[in-house]
This record gives sequence, structure tokens and C-alpha cells, in this order.
Amino acid sequence: MKIWQKNIDVDSFVESFTVGNDREMDLQLAEADVLGSLAHTRMLHSIGLMTAEDLQAVQQELKKIYQEIQDGSFIIEDSVEDVHSQVEMMLTQRIGEAGKKIHSGRSRNDQVLVDLKLYFRSEIKALFDGTEVLFKQLISCSERYKNVLMPGYTHLQIAMPSSFGLWFGAYAESLVDDLHLLKAAWTVSNKNPLGSAAGYGSSFPLNRTMTTELLGFEDLNYNVVYAQMGRGKTERIVAQAMSSIAATLAKFAMDVTLYINQNFGFISFPAHLTTGSSIMPHKKNPDVFELIRSRCNKIQALPNEIAMMTTNLPMGYHRDLQLLKENLFPAFQSLSDCLEIATFMLEHISIKENILDDPKYDYLFSVEVVNNEVLEGVPFREAYKNIGLAIEEGTFKPEKEVQHTHEGSIGNLCNDQIERMFESVKVEFGFEKVEKALDDLLK
Amino acid sequence: MKIWQKNIDVDSFVESFTVGNDREMDLQLAEADVLGSLAHTRMLHSIGLMTAEDLQAVQQELKKIYQEIQDGSFIIEDSVEDVHSQVEMMLTQRIGEAGKKIHSGRSRNDQVLVDLKLYFRSEIKALFDGTEVLFKQLISCSERYKNVLMPGYTHLQIAMPSSFGLWFGAYAESLVDDLHLLKAAWTVSNKNPLGSAAGYGSSFPLNRTMTTELLGFEDLNYNVVYAQMGRGKTERIVAQAMSSIAATLAKFAMDVTLYINQNFGFISFPAHLTTGSSIMPHKKNPDVFELIRSRCNKIQALPNEIAMMTTNLPMGYHRDLQLLKENLFPAFQSLSDCLEIATFMLEHISIKENILDDPKYDYLFSVEVVNNEVLEGVPFREAYKNIGLAIEEGTFKPEKEVQHTHEGSIGNLCNDQIERMFESVKVEFGFEKVEKALDDLLK
Amino acid sequence: MKIWQKNIDVDSFVESFTVGNDREMDLQLAEADVLGSLAHTRMLHSIGLMTAEDLQAVQQELKKIYQEIQDGSFIIEDSVEDVHSQVEMMLTQRIGEAGKKIHSGRSRNDQVLVDLKLYFRSEIKALFDGTEVLFKQLISCSERYKNVLMPGYTHLQIAMPSSFGLWFGAYAESLVDDLHLLKAAWTVSNKNPLGSAAGYGSSFPLNRTMTTELLGFEDLNYNVVYAQMGRGKTERIVAQAMSSIAATLAKFAMDVTLYINQNFGFISFPAHLTTGSSIMPHKKNPDVFELIRSRCNKIQALPNEIAMMTTNLPMGYHRDLQLLKENLFPAFQSLSDCLEIATFMLEHISIKENILDDPKYDYLFSVEVVNNEVLEGVPFREAYKNIGLAIEEGTFKPEKEVQHTHEGSIGNLCNDQIERMFESVKVEFGFEKVEKALDDLLK
Amino acid sequence: MKIWQKNIDVDSFVESFTVGNDREMDLQLAEADVLGSLAHTRMLHSIGLMTAEDLQAVQQELKKIYQEIQDGSFIIEDSVEDVHSQVEMMLTQRIGEAGKKIHSGRSRNDQVLVDLKLYFRSEIKALFDGTEVLFKQLISCSERYKNVLMPGYTHLQIAMPSSFGLWFGAYAESLVDDLHLLKAAWTVSNKNPLGSAAGYGSSFPLNRTMTTELLGFEDLNYNVVYAQMGRGKTERIVAQAMSSIAATLAKFAMDVTLYINQNFGFISFPAHLTTGSSIMPHKKNPDVFELIRSRCNKIQALPNEIAMMTTNLPMGYHRDLQLLKENLFPAFQSLSDCLEIATFMLEHISIKENILDDPKYDYLFSVEVVNNEVLEGVPFREAYKNIGLAIEEGTFKPEKEVQHTHEGSIGNLCNDQIERMFESVKVEFGFEKVEKALDDLLK
Repeated sequence: MKIWQKNIDVDSFVESFTVGNDREMDLQLAEADVLGSLAHTRMLHSIGLMTAEDLQAVQQELKKIYQEIQDGSFIIEDSVEDVHSQVEMMLTQRIGEAGKKIHSGRSRNDQVLVDLKLYFRSEIKALFDGTEVLFKQLISCSERYKNVLMPGYTHLQIAMPSSFGLWFGAYAESLVDDLHLLKAAWTVSNKNPLGSAAGYGSSFPLNRTMTTELLGFEDLNYNVVYAQMGRGKTERIVAQAMSSIAATLAKFAMDVTLYINQNFGFISFPAHLTTGSSIMPHKKNPDVFELIRSRCNKIQALPNEIAMMTTNLPMGYHRDLQLLKENLFPAFQSLSDCLEIATFMLEHISIKENILDDPKYDYLFSVEVVNNEVLEGVPFREAYKNIGLAIEEGTFKPEKEVQHTHEGSIGNLCNDQIERMFESVKVEFGFEKVEKALDDLLK
Repeated sequence: MKIWQKNIDVDSFVESFTVGNDREMDLQLAEADVLGSLAHTRMLHSIGLMTAEDLQAVQQELKKIYQEIQDGSFIIEDSVEDVHSQVEMMLTQRIGEAGKKIHSGRSRNDQVLVDLKLYFRSEIKALFDGTEVLFKQLISCSERYKNVLMPGYTHLQIAMPSSFGLWFGAYAESLVDDLHLLKAAWTVSNKNPLGSAAGYGSSFPLNRTMTTELLGFEDLNYNVVYAQMGRGKTERIVAQAMSSIAATLAKFAMDVTLYINQNFGFISFPAHLTTGSSIMPHKKNPDVFELIRSRCNKIQALPNEIAMMTTNLPMGYHRDLQLLKENLFPAFQSLSDCLEIATFMLEHISIKENILDDPKYDYLFSVEVVNNEVLEGVPFREAYKNIGLAIEEGTFKPEKEVQHTHEGSIGNLCNDQIERMFESVKVEFGFEKVEKALDDLLK
Repeated sequence: MKIWQKNIDVDSFVESFTVGNDREMDLQLAEADVLGSLAHTRMLHSIGLMTAEDLQAVQQELKKIYQEIQDGSFIIEDSVEDVHSQVEMMLTQRIGEAGKKIHSGRSRNDQVLVDLKLYFRSEIKALFDGTEVLFKQLISCSERYKNVLMPGYTHLQIAMPSSFGLWFGAYAESLVDDLHLLKAAWTVSNKNPLGSAAGYGSSFPLNRTMTTELLGFEDLNYNVVYAQMGRGKTERIVAQAMSSIAATLAKFAMDVTLYINQNFGFISFPAHLTTGSSIMPHKKNPDVFELIRSRCNKIQALPNEIAMMTTNLPMGYHRDLQLLKENLFPAFQSLSDCLEIATFMLEHISIKENILDDPKYDYLFSVEVVNNEVLEGVPFREAYKNIGLAIEEGTFKPEKEVQHTHEGSIGNLCNDQIERMFESVKVEFGFEKVEKALDDLLK
Repeated sequence: MKIWQKNIDVDSFVESFTVGNDREMDLQLAEADVLGSLAHTRMLHSIGLMTAEDLQAVQQELKKIYQEIQDGSFIIEDSVEDVHSQVEMMLTQRIGEAGKKIHSGRSRNDQVLVDLKLYFRSEIKALFDGTEVLFKQLISCSERYKNVLMPGYTHLQIAMPSSFGLWFGAYAESLVDDLHLLKAAWTVSNKNPLGSAAGYGSSFPLNRTMTTELLGFEDLNYNVVYAQMGRGKTERIVAQAMSSIAATLAKFAMDVTLYINQNFGFISFPAHLTTGSSIMPHKKNPDVFELIRSRCNKIQALPNEIAMMTTNLPMGYHRDLQLLKENLFPAFQSLSDCLEIATFMLEHISIKENILDDPKYDYLFSVEVVNNEVLEGVPFREAYKNIGLAIEEGTFKPEKEVQHTHEGSIGNLCNDQIERMFESVKVEFGFEKVEKALDDLLK
């Protein structure tokens, strides 16, 4: 059953090509679709386009459907084109004519737009939560191992003393910066496109400010042409924010595969969290981190894919945009999985102590010795020359004590400041306001 | 002269390969480099690593060099490796030994990092300014032509009535959303990496909070390992923000090339702003907009290029990062040019009135008629059927009056709300605080 | 059941993350996996590592399994890790110990490698076939409409007379050039990696030349380290070839959406192949072509995605590579669908005759008139000036006759030459040799 | 001076935006431009559009200009728009009216097209040459160090014995596969677009077959609309081929930075080919390879950039295409530099012998021992279990002898076969035919 379809029969060949796996994707929009309709119909009533009676029937039944979605019993039937038609059909079957009226004053385009925005908000929130858990785990690892030194590399060459406190903390702080992008994606997603109809507005006296408040949006996509332009653009911005978190995770995974390698040997995981071979007992394949890296690099390519699919499309809706669902929707789950499993793995990580006892790391400390001379009054370039000569003559003796005190250094990690920054970004999102609005809507 | 070079002679072949066009790029960092040194030396003095006398000499001379950079007389000599060595060499030539001391307590790595952050801040500000001018021009066009109707397309098929007010306003509002990403890029750039040394901190008792305040940064990159990780990452985030503005411009350019095409014929530009041919007098090639589109699509590919060059690099500095300058630096100028010339072109745009008089646009109004029936009480699906029949029987008569009143529609553009959103993002940047800090530093 | 698993229990959480949807993807490798084992076991026998009896049992049963795959009755059980384990398990259940011996002398790595190469060969062949059918359809359209003129655009401005013969023929010839890339992908895929074991070879006296011949490969991936390196690289090259065909299709789809637009109105399709609306009867949404464009642009982004997921991985197998299946495998079907439906749509395309009668196209012919003067002896720059003046004075009269005779022009399309080029690329693939080898193997 | 410019003055602001750095790029097309004109004018004479006298004057002077380009004395003057105008202007200044006639029968569009094709051919040839030199160096390293063992890694975990012979040889063979793509790029570039005029052909009786032969092209771009479509497409295909070579180089560079790292310590370079620090004498920063990696990863992103700039542009010339020069032209030099410096570095590489004496590599040999038992008749799964037990009980003793004999293994590198494959691709290009044609043209 296709609602827009009248007398013209579309070849099933064409139909299967055009629908693709849209139904499967659409299932993820089901909750958002009901929320949108709850708000839309209350607004319709307020402007006289729906009777109080119809409104009550519609609201009650929509809330039931919402419950069915949460229970997992909601499905999109094979004969039904998409989630929007499915909800409308169920409503009409159950409450009769009133069900058909929910489509007044909107078009499929702005219905999809608002569903996507609501869905993105909810997925961004989930990503934020996953990021927060991993962030806390990283800070906790940083604190636990803050006194364990390790070599620091530049050009992948042994360079300066570092610590596990720094290593874990660095990735925690990286996630804070990633959240600034996620916040931008949230802000862009948190504006209401409902009421833009097919992208050119409507002759109905809609009250878009009302649906904005009901759905907990921060603001409107005012210009109706722009509201439609947000399709594809919002997806790209959300993907860019995801790619930033993904880049942090992928880099961490690269470090892990290197440090678990036997030539480094800095870290390890219990046997049941790696894969191995009984004839190569030293082999602890870090499959989990290789797959985190691979999934996250795939997500890093996602904004480009979306840009390639949307660039040079002139203004207005194009069917091309439908396919963006296939790219983006599974990426939410994939990134959430990565955040979760990375946290899980970190709970089981083991750290090698005393790495720097190995004499190959002695020269790590040469800069320390130079600096100490400088602090005692020797000009830098001269101190540098002294140590250089000592090393050349084989008389250099490292003191394997590290006395770093400034902000963010080995001896002063400032994890509390990093946590302060995290909390400060968190507040900017304003998740509570959204939650409250949706709770009210579903009451 | 290469400061890090001692007794080992690097083949000139290798040198030319490794330096590449880094000197040319570095010129753009000159101001930032001086600012960084002004703050760093004041901090060195505060912790007893530079005498008051040396500090005064250094500050005075650095400010002179800053002036030379602004005058355009500063150059990087062929024998000098980079901008940092050039400034240090000039200082030492002019004020002697004191000049050499500016390098104490920092390494080349964090010097480059802070230069980049200061430079990005200044370029982001410039992009913001260019965006603001274009935004105002678009709003002004939207207001001027708010009553001129044009067809709205979906699937590139004639669909619904639209207006030039909507068209121009849509791109204005698009820029507002782009600014949310630019703000994220600004926030990430506006944190101080100075004091992270080679990425592992320093044994000097540096006061990183002091340089943070002197340089007007909002916060620190605390963790020194993360400070180094910011290289490449900051570039990618800045490029992502640029790609968003670029996508808006490219889409607008695509619309322009379509609407200036003779089959549409909605807009035109004076002959001296297009290129043509005297034997094809109808031909007004929109070269400017084709090049805006092309430049902006190139910028759309930039974040991916940066990701490709940095992904899977383990923690710590790698020389790979040097090449990011070549990608990103010219893109700032290119995008600024696009913003400027787009504004200029809009000042000269001509709009065709009465487009909708052409009968091929009659059906644009069918939805209006349906909605009017609905407002008079006819159920939507029935009204829809009535008009469908009237059209089939050839009795349909469009009323070419559009009565859209809701927020963001043809009759109620809400440009004031869009301007309100613009101002509200602008405030979030806090440009004044940065300007004040830099003014103080240069006093 | 996981064959490599001994006493260590891998958390089901980790398992589900690492397996992902690999089983689903692996189903597509089932035929290739059997073919590889058929060849491998015959080779094992030839070097004394499998008895004649075991070989016979294995060959017979593998052929049965091959039949089951073709019948669609083959599945990968939930408890089984991948297609390779499934085949080996079925074999062992049915013929006992002999089934276990098929793994001698190879590792999972080279088994996957050879499966992928065989699978890519078969998918490349399918893409070639789809391309051939579309090519012939385009040539046929070009011939049928060779006398129907249309405007030619430069800068999207009306420029010169063109024809539907040229338009269709151009895309046919574009496919020929795409096939050169597909041929490169074929050549790279058509080399045998079997025998490279885990990427470092084997102490067994394998006869890799024998399996090369049995499987119809043109050559070997000799160096075993390189054979492993081919993973990811082959995928990228295959995707590059696909992206070239996709770019041709996407461009054609863009043209179609433009030409079916009412402002152009050059072409149309029957109502049942477009989607519309009964109240906007002029609306013929070209959904099929919008989705071709979108799918093909997605494929255009695929090589970049693969590069992002593989770049900077050092030599040797990494689990990252598993995820490439998810990107590439569905793209084969998607591109084949696009080729098929594009052909189908072209069978139903309608062309508008007499487009150029519209006076807005008069100036199209100005260059013709200049050239005619030149042919009569007037210097080019002078003839150009003459016509320019005539146009300025309004005395210009186009002769709407086009007399182009040179190779590839309106009057001399050279479609036979384009077909000759097509055939000549086709021959280079050597599909028959591969088919014959596989037929022999399955006999 | 702009030839197409008549009475309309284009703002200098617009001019500077539109010209960009096109003049600088165009210099690289100068030789190709002259070659194209040499062929075009001989053809014009053959069809009666140029007198024998004019032809002689033009040919003689063009050859002089060609000489000036090769001498480096040719420049594009500031007042001249592009290389084509410069050559035409010089010709006219020197030989008068005859110079103006070289533009008859072609347009700027097909002139640029043929210049690009000729230029790409010459750059592809240069890349081939650079690849050949590196290939031979890799084969030579492979042969020299074929008996030096090293660990082989999977999942970056120590896995199996490998050798430097395998490592170097793998990259040599990788280059062979890259050449298949380069050959495809060559074939696509080696077709003649001249005579397609502005993309819609010409009313002149051009002999395109003649210019095809004169310029040594293998075939024609027959369809004139397709000839124009080749712009952007050819660039993308050439970039795809370059990205394949680049991916090989980048991966090799990644290996080098890993193996030169002190935790691996497998290879080294003389001090003057690395950068270091006198206080960290162990530090041998592999800057050259880091920059090879970075440059090559940038080139890996190039095809995507070109696709982003050209996708969704409808048929026909667009000014967007001009900017592709900026992307692609510098990449030729950059990749050639990488090939050259990689070869140079390999001439100076030092290899560590006896790496496997370190007991941490003992388990490398466990698979060997399993296989040896199998060869003696023990079933694989049982032998595997035996060794697993021996290892668990600490009784495992590796025999550090590797006896691999099959094709492409440690003991049988088959470098001669890899060279055979290289020569066989080389022959397919047919460089001599092109060289002969150009020599004849310049005689």
C-alpha cells in the first residue's frame, strides 16, 4: 500500500530498486515519528484543524504505538512503504477516519525531516553517554598508573620520558575536544524543521513555535527552504562529529596494537580478550582493537561519502537523500559499540612496570640533564653542548628521576581540570530540557 | 643555517625534499610566532629564567619585528630553515646573546603548535568576518525581493510556489548553522599548547596558565601528550568547519548556474561580471560561480585529505604533519575570496519578475487550492481527489496568490529571527577577549 | 565451533563485536571457497600430501556442496565462525577424517585471499556483462535518434547544436574507457595468492603453479609477502574501477534529471516508471535516476573509504581487513542493479523532436555561420566579427541545418568505431580461459 | 590581452579570482600546446584551410618556440591569459597573419583537451621511468639480502620467519600491479580529443584520424561530446593510478619508520640521511620516509578530491574543470620525487643480520616444526597439538633453519618471474611508437 499512489502502477522492478532497504532503516525512526505526530496533532487542534475528540483518540493511540515500538513488537509490513505510512495505517485501522487527519498541514518531506532531527538528537545523546563512560575510564587509568613511566616517542624514535598517566589522560582530553564538535552537531540537530512541508511552506496557519516547544527543540529552522536544505547537511555535520570521536579511538587502537607488540611489550590483556594460537603462545592478537581501528577509520570516511552524495545537488528535495540513511544509521551503533568495548578492554588492561630500566631507554633522560644545568644557570645552547660531549665520550649518566611540575606534565597531570572541561561541555548540551519536553509529550 | 644541525651534513638532495615549500607556508605564521615569543619570554622572566634586562630587550625587538611583518618587509632567508629560526636569528643579530634565550623552556614542537593555534584563531576570525558580510548581503537580498515569486522544485520538478525572499534567506540561515561548526573549531583552536615541549613536557617550572592568559586563550591543552596530538586534529576540525561554509557556497553556486541558464532564466548579472561571446550574445557564462563551486568543492574534500594523512599514525610527533600546512593554509585565502566575491556578485544580481505568469507554472498552485478546501472543512484526502479530477478534466484554475503566514514561510520570512540566531552565535566566539589580550601583549 | 579455539573461552561480548556480520558476507564467498579447495586438494595429492582415495572422496563431496550453494540450500550455521569452517565441517561430517586434511599446506589467510580473488573475478565478469548490455542499449539509442537535434551547453549556457545521437553515444564511449580500468582490476585480481599461507610461505613443497592453472589464473602473486599485501589493495583497485563506471552512470543520471525537468523538457518516461501526484500531473519525479545517481556517488566514495581503512597499516595481516567485505560486497550488487535498471529505463525513454524550433535556440547556429564564411575564404577573426555585427543589428538568420562530417560529429557518429573499441577491450579480459578452467575443475 | 575579449571590460577583481594561478600551471602545458598546433596546422593544410606557405612559416616558428620552452626561456606574460594565447601571440608577432590562422577549426576547449592528454602521456611516462628505477633497486636489495631472515608479523604480532629478500621483493611486485592501473591511465590518455571543438564538433571537414597519427595517439575519442567529458575523468583515472603507486610507497615508508625504530631495530641509514640530535645520539629520525608517507597519503586522497569537484556536473564544459590543474600537476612532481628519493635511500640502507638470534623470536619457528611432522606423516591437527604441548611444557626447541622451496617463498623468491611480469606490462605501453611520432612531428 502506497498512500501517494493513485491509479498508476509502478513496476515491481522499479519499486524494489527504489525502496531498497529503506524499511529496515526506517524502523529506527519509529519512535521519532510518533513523537512528531504527537506534537503535530496537538498543534493542529490548537489552530482548529483537528477536533478535541479526534485529538484525544489520536494521542491515546499514538502513545500505545510508542509503547509497542519500545516493546519491540512494532514492525513495518512488507506491503507498506515506510514507517510513516505504517503508523498512519495502524492509526486508521484502530481509530478510523481521525487517523487520516494527522497528515494535514505537513508533507512527507517535513515529517521525515523532523523524524531525522529527533532521531539524531537521541543518537547524539547515546554517543555522548558512551563517550562519558570511556572518558571516566581513561581518567581512572591515568590516575591509577600516573607514576608508571614509559618512553615517549617522536618520529617513532625514542625521545623523552613519558608516563602511562600521560598516555591515558591524553586520550581523555582528546574526547573533550571531540565533544565540541558533537555539541555543534547537537545544536544543528536541535532545531525544528516541522511545518516546512515540501520545502516551500504551507497555506495553513501552522504554529511552528508550538511544535518547537512541544518537541523540546532549542530553536526553529525558520526559512522553510533552508529547513529542507538541512537534509544531507545535518547528516554530514553529525558524521563529522562522529569522525572526530572515531579518530581519537582509532589512534588509541593504533597505539594499543603497537604497545602490545612484543618488540614494545608495554601492555597486555587477559588471554580471553585476545585471540591466539596454542603453538605460538606469545601471540596475543589484539583483534578487538584492530576492529575498533577499522570501524573507526570507516567512520572517518563517512563525512566524505555524504558530501560526495550531496554535493552539486541544486536546492530542493532529491530522492538521492534517502540513501544517506544506509550510511549513517549503522554508524551510530558501530561507534557506540566501539566506545563500549574500548571501555571494557581498558578495565582489563595490564601495564608493564619498570620499562625504563632497560638501558636502551637511557638517552631518554638527556634533555632532563640539559635542563637541570640550565636551571643552575648554564645557557641552554652550552648545556646542550656539554651533554652532547658527555654522550659522545660515553660518560653520560642518566638520572631516571623525572621532576616535571608544570600544568599537564608527568608530575601534575591536571586530570581534575580535564574533568572540569568535560563537565563544562556537558552542560552546554542541555539534555534535561529535551528529556523533560519528551516526557511531557508522552504523559 | 639550521639551528638543530651540528656536525652532520645533510645532503642537499634530502634537504630540498624535506623542506619542500615550508618556508613559503611559514611566512603566514610569522605574526603568530612573534606573539608566542612575547608571551613565552614574559613567562620565562616570571619564573626566573630570563633577566628583566634581557626581557626588555627581547620584547622591544620582537615588537619591531612584528611591525616589519605587518609592513611586509619581513622575509625568511634562503639559508634559514623556517620562520622560528628566522625570528631567533634576527633577534640574536640585533640584541646579541639575549636573543638565544627565547628558546629556553620550549621546543620546536610546542612553538609550532602555539603558532598554529594563534594563526588558526586569526583565520577563523577572518572567515567569520567574511561570512558575516555575505550573511548580511543575503538577508538584504531576501528582504528586497521578498515579494517576487519563483517556482519551487522537488526532484528538480516544478512543485510549489516559492520566492526569492525564501531562496536568499535560506542561504543566510544555512550560514548560521555553519557557524556552529566554526565555533567548535574556534573552541578547539583557542586552547594553549605552549609548554608541552616535544609532547612530553619539561623539567622547567613553566607557568602555562600565565601564557594562556597573555595570549588570550580560553583554556589550556593540559595534558602535554594531548597538546601534541592536537596537531593534525585541529587542522582537521578547522577544515571540517570550512567545508561546511564551502558546502553552502557551492550549493548556492550550483543554483546560480542553473537559474542563469536560459531554460530557467530567473536571474542575471551585468555583462562585465560574466564572460561571453559576441557571436553568442545570449551567452553569459557564470565563470565566477563555477569557480566558487569548484574551489568550495575542493575545500569539501580537504577534511578527508587531512584524515588520510594523519590516520593510523601512532601517538607523538611525525614529520608527516608538516605537509598539512600546504593543504590548509591556501584554503583560508581561497574560502575568504569566495565569500568576498559571492557578496560582490550579489550586489549586482538582477531578478526576473513575473516568472510565474508563464502557464507552465500553473500547477504549482494546485496544493494551495487543496489546502484552501481543507481550511473550508473538506477532508484532505477528498480535497486532494477533487483537484486531481479538476486537473484531469482541464477545469483547474490556479489562483496565483500565495497566502502563507506561518514562521519562515513566503509571507513571514522571519529574517529577524535568523539575524537573532546569527548574533547569538557571534557572541559565543568572544573575539573581543582575544583582541584585547593581543593588544595588551603588543603594547 | 571455532577451529582455532582451544581451551580459551572468548567472551561472547567480544565475539559478537569481532564477528560482526561477517557470516552474512561470507556466504558470497562460498562458491569460491569450494573452488579453491578443489584445486588445493588436487595439488596436495600431486605432492604426496593426500592419498588418491581421500582426494576422490573430498572432490566428490566438494562438488556436491558446490551444487548445494548454487541451489541456495547452503547456509553458515550460527555456531560456525565463517564459510571456510562451515565447508570443512560439512566435509568432515560427511566423509570423516579426510575432510580435515584439506587444510594442510594452507592457512586461513591464503584461503581467504584466493576466495576473494575468485569472487572478484566473478563479480568483475558480472559487471562487464551489465556494462555490455547498457553499452549496446546506448549505441542503439544513439543510432535511433541520430538525426534528432538538441542544444549543446557549455557553462550550462546554450552554446552549439548537438544531437541525441551524440548524447547517447557519448555515454557509450565513456563506458569503453571505464572498461580499461575494469580490465586493470581484472588483471590484478587474476593472479593466484594460494600457497602464501599466513603471508610468509610454507615449508611444504607446494606446487603453486599447478593451482594457478587449475583455477584459471593468468599468473601468480609470486612473493608470498606481496600476496598478503594484495588484501585491501585488490579491493581498492576493484573499487576504483567500479567508481569509474559509477561516475559515468551518475553523470548520465544528472543529465536525465535535468532534461526531464520542465524547463528543459527534452525527454520523458512513461508514467509507471516515474512517480507523480494526481494534483501535479506535470510532475514526473525521476526517482530511478536520482537513486542511480545517489548509489553511484556512494560507489564513487568507496575507493577513498578503503584507502582510509588500510593506509598506514604496516606489512602483514591485520584484522582491520575483514571489514572491507562490508563495504565492497554490497557495492557489486548495487552497481549491477544500476546498470540493469538504467538499461531498462532507456528502453522506455521518449525523446522530444524539434526542440530547436524554439527561437531561444537560434544563436546556437552562429558558429556554424562563421565557419561557413571561413570555408568560403573569409579569415576566421573577420567572419567572427561579421556575424557578431549581424547579431548586434538583429539581422542574423540561423540556418538550422547542421553539416558536420568529421569523425565523431553529429553527421558521422562513428558508433561502429566505438563498438570496435569495445570489442577490443572485451577480448583483453580472456573470460573464456577462466570459464574453461573452472568448468574443468568442476567436472 | 584576452583574445576572446571584445568590448566588455571584466572587473580586475573578477579577473584575478577567475585566472587564479592558471598561468603558472599552464607553463607545464607549453610543449604539449606546440605539439598540438604542429599537428593541427598540418591537418588544416591537408584539408585546404591553410596554404603551403603559411604552413611552412607556422611549422618553422612553432619548432623554434618548442626549443625556447625546452631552453627555459619561454614565459607567459602577465597580460596574457594562458599558454595558448601566449603561443598564438608570439607566432603572430613573428610571422604575421599566418599566426592567427592556427586557431581555425578548433576551439579553446579541444586545444586544452589535447594539451592535457599529451601532457599526461609525458608525465605517465616519467612516472613509469621512476617506478622502473625503484623496482630494479628493490629487486636488487631483495637479491642481495635474500638470505637474511627477519620476523614476519600478523596482527603486528611475531608470527613466522620471513626474510629481507621477501620484504624488498614484495614491494617490487607491488609496483608491478600498480603499473596495470598506470597502463589503464595511459590507454585512456592516449586517445585523441582534437577536433571535438567546444564539445559539439565542427562544420569544418577536419581529418581527426590524421592528427591522431601525427601525435602518435593509439586511437580517437570519437564522439565529440565524450571527448569533452574526458576532462575531469581522465584526471581522475590518472590520479587513481598515481594513488596506487603512492599507496605502495606509503606502506613501505610505514614499514621503514617501524623497522628503524629502536624497539625493532632491523634497519638503519647513514647519519647524513636522517636527522638527529647530538644529545639523543640514538635518534635517527626518518624524516625522508615520513615525508614520503605524507606526500603519498596526500596523493591517495587526490582521486577523491577530483571526484568531489566533478561529480554531479551535467554534460558539457564547466569552468570548474580549470582548477583540476592545481591538484594534479604538482602531484606528478611530488610522486616522481618520492620515487627518486626512495631509490636513493635504498642505495644506502643497512640491514641488521642475525635478528632472529634473539630468543624472543623462538616461537616463530613453531609452525615449521608442525609442518615437518606433517611431512613425516603425522596428521596436521595432531602435530599441531604435539607442538602446543611441547611449548606448554617448555620442551620446545626451534630449529632456526628455514626450508621453503615453493614459488615465491624465502628459498625461492622468483624475482626473475616478477621481472618477467614487469617487462610484460612495460611492453603494453608502447612508448616507442609515441616517441617516434613526436620525433617525426618535430623534425
